[in-house]
This record gives sequence, structure tokens and C-alpha cells, in this order.
Amino acid sequence: MKSLFGSPGKPSGLALRLCQCLFAAASLAVMASASGFSTATSFCYLIAAMGLQVLWSFGLACLDIHALRLNKDLHNHILLSFLLVGDWVTVILSLAAASSSAGVMILFMKDTDICRLQPSLSCYTFQISIALAFIAWFLLAISSYVVLWLLATV
Amino acid sequence: MKSLFGSPGKPSGLALRLCQCLFAAASLAVMASASGFSTATSFCYLIAAMGLQVLWSFGLACLDIHALRLNKDLHNHILLSFLLVGDWVTVILSLAAASSSAGVMILFMKDTDICRLQPSLSCYTFQISIALAFIAWFLLAISSYVVLWLLATV
Repeated sequence: MKSLFGSPGKPSGLALRLCQCLFAAASLAVMASASGFSTATSFCYLIAAMGLQVLWSFGLACLDIHALRLNKDLHNHILLSFLLVGDWVTVILSLAAASSSAGVMILFMKDTDICRLQPSLSCYTFQISIALAFIAWFLLAISSYVVLWLLATV
Repeated sequence: MKSLFGSPGKPSGLALRLCQCLFAAASLAVMASASGFSTATSFCYLIAAMGLQVLWSFGLACLDIHALRLNKDLHNHILLSFLLVGDWVTVILSLAAASSSAGVMILFMKDTDICRLQPSLSCYTFQISIALAFIAWFLLAISSYVVLWLLATV
């Protein structure tokens, strides 16, 4: 089986999982610390999706550390199929959460003047959180493509 | 090379492309006919994304018809790579558009009372259009997975 950049059980795979976990946790923390996030369901959904991504990526980072320490090979059909399903579910949920929050944010800032009229809303903080969520989604998408490619070329 | 359900140049592939085109066109038409869609940038973005999907799926449906009539094999590396990039760009844009519109719709209906207070907005029509966009995205996602799988197993 080929070994690609970001494969499970490789140092590059571990680095990718840790970055995913870091950006998702940062997005979650920034959104949860912003005042008025509960005004929009999309922002609450972003917190839930990023929470799921943190758990998933952290779990797989631990698996990678375990494999690297014991020099185990994680390239088997059952594990890769499990990773594929988990990765794709998380990727779709993360992109949907980031996009729906971005849609609401554009409505707040461009289509209406809600951000200007309601200074209690931390619009700037919302934007940082959404940008971090898009980065976390992009990093997870790389991992999920690598897993799909590995599974197809077994 | 394996022949999967929905492969390019097969009757199932043609049926999938025609369904994608149909649902995307329906979503576009329903959203464009709704009064007040220009109040939110997300709804305009949905129209643009569905327009792109209609063009893409219609073009590939024509390619499938051509291949079926002349009994040509479309399974070559260059064409599959081109389909892969186009499919994935369209899939990501469609999901982002449908999700951002859904986020705005939930804000209009659940978080605020805009739909009730402004009867000029066709909230019910927006919802139908968003549901059709999600179906169109799902059908396109199936095609893109098939193409990625075919390319990986060449």
C-alpha cells in the first residue's frame, strides 16, 4: 500500500490531526466567548460541529501517537473504512456549520445593519471563529481524501 | 477498470447527471421566483451555485449521451481527473450555498420573527428551494465519489 502525506499512523498524519484539533478548538473557544452567539442557531451549531471535530481529531491523534510509539501499521481495511465514514461525516457537518454561520454573518454585516445597530453582538469575534472553522474544515478534508485514496488503492 | 453504478458513459451515470441537473434547475427556478430573495446574499449565492451545477451536470449528461451513442469508453485518466476536479469544486460550492441559505432561513423563522412580520418574504418558497438544493448536492456527491473511486482504482 502506498504511503501518502497525512496517512494514519505517520508523523505527517499526526501533525495534520493535531492542527485540525487545534483550529477546531480555537474556533469553538472564540465563538463560545463571543457575546450574543446564542442569537443565531447557526452559531450554536458551529460550536457543536467544532466540538465533534475536536473529539474526533483528538481521538485519532492519540491513535497515531500509539501507532508511532509501537511502530504499528494502521493500513488495514476495517480501520480505514471506519476512518473514512467518520472523516466524511465530520467534514460535511463542519462545512455545513461554517457555511451557515458565514451566511448569517453576511446577513448581519452586509444585507442588514444589525452589527452596527447592536454593538452588544461581537461581530468581529464571530468572523474570527468562522475563519478558524473554515481552516479546520480544510485540514480535515485533506485527511479524508487521503483515507479514501488509501482505501481505494489497497 | 471496475464499472460502478453512476460511472461516466453508462446509463446509470447519465440518469444521475440528469437528476442532478433537474433538481438544481428546480431549486434555481423556485428561488428566483420567490419574492424578496435578494434580501439575503446567501439566497443569491444559492442561485449562482445552482446555475453552475445545472451547467456542469447538463454538460456531462451530453457527454454521457455522446459516449452511449458511439459506445465510447470514458474511463481514462485525463478525463476522470478533469471530472474529479470539476465535481468536487461544484459539490463544495453547492453544499456551502445550501447550508448558508439554510442558516439564514433558520434565523428568519426560528431565531427571529422576520417571516411572520414581513409577509412579503416568500419563506415557504425559500424552504422548498433549499430542500431541492440539498437533494441536488447529494446526487452530485454520489457522482463525485464514484469518479474518485474509479480514478483511484485505475
